[in-house]
Amino acid sequence: MSTAASLPNRPLTVAILGASGAVGQELLQLLQERHFPVKELRLLASARSAGTRCSWNGQDLTVQEVSESAFAGVDLVLASAGGSVSRQWREAIVAAGAVMVDNSSAFRMDDDVPLVVPEVNPEAAIQHRGVIANPNCTTILLTLALAPLATRRALRRVVVSTYQSASGAGAQAMEELKTHSHEVLAGMTPTPAVLPHSLAFNLFLHNSPLQANRYCEEEMKMVNETRKIMGLPDLRFTATCVRVPVLRAHSEAVNVEFDAPLPVAEARELLAAAPGVQLMDDPASSRFPMPTDVAGRDPVMVGRVREDISEPKALEFWLCGDQIRKGAALNAIQIAELLLPA
Amino acid sequence: MSTAASLPNRPLTVAILGASGAVGQELLQLLQERHFPVKELRLLASARSAGTRCSWNGQDLTVQEVSESAFAGVDLVLASAGGSVSRQWREAIVAAGAVMVDNSSAFRMDDDVPLVVPEVNPEAAIQHRGVIANPNCTTILLTLALAPLATRRALRRVVVSTYQSASGAGAQAMEELKTHSHEVLAGMTPTPAVLPHSLAFNLFLHNSPLQANRYCEEEMKMVNETRKIMGLPDLRFTATCVRVPVLRAHSEAVNVEFDAPLPVAEARELLAAAPGVQLMDDPASSRFPMPTDVAGRDPVMVGRVREDISEPKALEFWLCGDQIRKGAALNAIQIAELLLPA
Repeated sequence: MSTAASLPNRPLTVAILGASGAVGQELLQLLQERHFPVKELRLLASARSAGTRCSWNGQDLTVQEVSESAFAGVDLVLASAGGSVSRQWREAIVAAGAVMVDNSSAFRMDDDVPLVVPEVNPEAAIQHRGVIANPNCTTILLTLALAPLATRRALRRVVVSTYQSASGAGAQAMEELKTHSHEVLAGMTPTPAVLPHSLAFNLFLHNSPLQANRYCEEEMKMVNETRKIMGLPDLRFTATCVRVPVLRAHSEAVNVEFDAPLPVAEARELLAAAPGVQLMDDPASSRFPMPTDVAGRDPVMVGRVREDISEPKALEFWLCGDQIRKGAALNAIQIAELLLPA
Repeated sequence: MSTAASLPNRPLTVAILGASGAVGQELLQLLQERHFPVKELRLLASARSAGTRCSWNGQDLTVQEVSESAFAGVDLVLASAGGSVSRQWREAIVAAGAVMVDNSSAFRMDDDVPLVVPEVNPEAAIQHRGVIANPNCTTILLTLALAPLATRRALRRVVVSTYQSASGAGAQAMEELKTHSHEVLAGMTPTPAVLPHSLAFNLFLHNSPLQANRYCEEEMKMVNETRKIMGLPDLRFTATCVRVPVLRAHSEAVNVEFDAPLPVAEARELLAAAPGVQLMDDPASSRFPMPTDVAGRDPVMVGRVREDISEPKALEFWLCGDQIRKGAALNAIQIAELLLPA
């Protein structure tokens, strides 16, 4: 392990860029919960959020406006303020000698930026040149379940449909879902402001920009990021991403075809033993994962593993994971933990 | 057209079995809305619901307890009180000379019972021997979109994930979703009574009984009924059915593989011209069907038709349809209309 790639062997100066968002708040909680070696924590945000106060680990912190000088002496930046903010400050962060773990999609597909799910491709992290990208939430959850299966059979094709919570669009979208639900229950027709349509008792195809091929950005993120993380650049992959009126956990219905049949019992064993995965697969009681099972929890829960009756080489399964936690903040912290000296 | 198979050429005596349910109420509304030739309308239900009063088309009707004699003189029975009630009264209904359009799953796969979506296989209806089955909601919506495509290319395989509303579990499940949503918004943890888990800001794999192959009954209904309606007994088909916190419209993410590539433009033309289908497919505005677009409306809305980037012979599309209306009551009335003398 090269010294420059690892974080220094002492309590660290950590900056959170975008501390006031849903993911930023979860990062604060996880740094404390996981006893990350923090000497000093700097909360950075745009001028609009600067001055906001925040208590963390018994300290009273004030959000500062982000600037080049704010990164002086920082060892680690956890960035979660969107792609344009990450692009704007990348150079300053790297020039300050800090490692940036970036939750945005800005650099994920760059050749010189590792895209890491610690349980899947931890070896990629240490090859960073200052920036490590945190994958898209749906991709993180999916690769945790695909990786153990791929150790036994080559993946041929993946067809996935998602059921994505409001949290994927941020804290304001979660609030809007609650407000709109109140309004619908009161017989009113809500007016969307954060999301393009109301999610209250409704759902819609993911609203990220459509590409020429009629896949939205979110879907192409799943396709491209899964290929990069798993080292399978030609994996046949299609995804339909859907926003549903759930607060903070994503679900996915997954159909995966292998080069040869993989017995269900074997797949279950692999999943049960996989890090970051909890198998909840009890056909006798028809009890399988639900968003309420995983909200606020670390593992991705996987269940209803079965042979696809339409294709003997394919299996189907269902998974749920907390979007803010493993789908974003937890994975980012785990990436940083990979860089801590042993 | 055989005379016995058609309904008589005069105003009809119509009975609704299960008039107080969500589908029963929609049947009442549709009979009036569509000017179905009703001379007399009899509302029948179990002893528990007997005596309930109901206004219809300016008349004040009282629900009667179902009995053999209640079918005397009846021309048409629209049954929507569950499989066991349909099984119990089938003989009496047929013996009384009435035609039974049955919304339950009791007889759908029987060889001597046509299973009909009027836009897809109207010719099957007239071959009835007293009973015509109304398909499962998700199947009706799906076959409306598959049928026009199947006129151009042979279907090879269908992979579908559903997003099914509370209405599929009845009026009480819809009420429970509302009550539980209120409770969650008030910070409480709801206790499920109608459905096995709370749907409020949550979702779960369809709770119909699991088969040995780990597909639930609802999923196998889609597989088997689609094959029967489309006359494709060997169609390769897999479905994952999921209940979501939406009130009365179902959505489906569909991946369909053909024997040869079908250009998207051709598929769009076929869908735009298909009876019962409304194409809502505007990539420029990213506007595609949502449950709120179809609630209380007749057509199945289809959109985001695209070539599957993982399989050149496959297309993907998205659809939404009102579960109570086209998914149940409207389709039943349309079946009865097929039997009206020209």
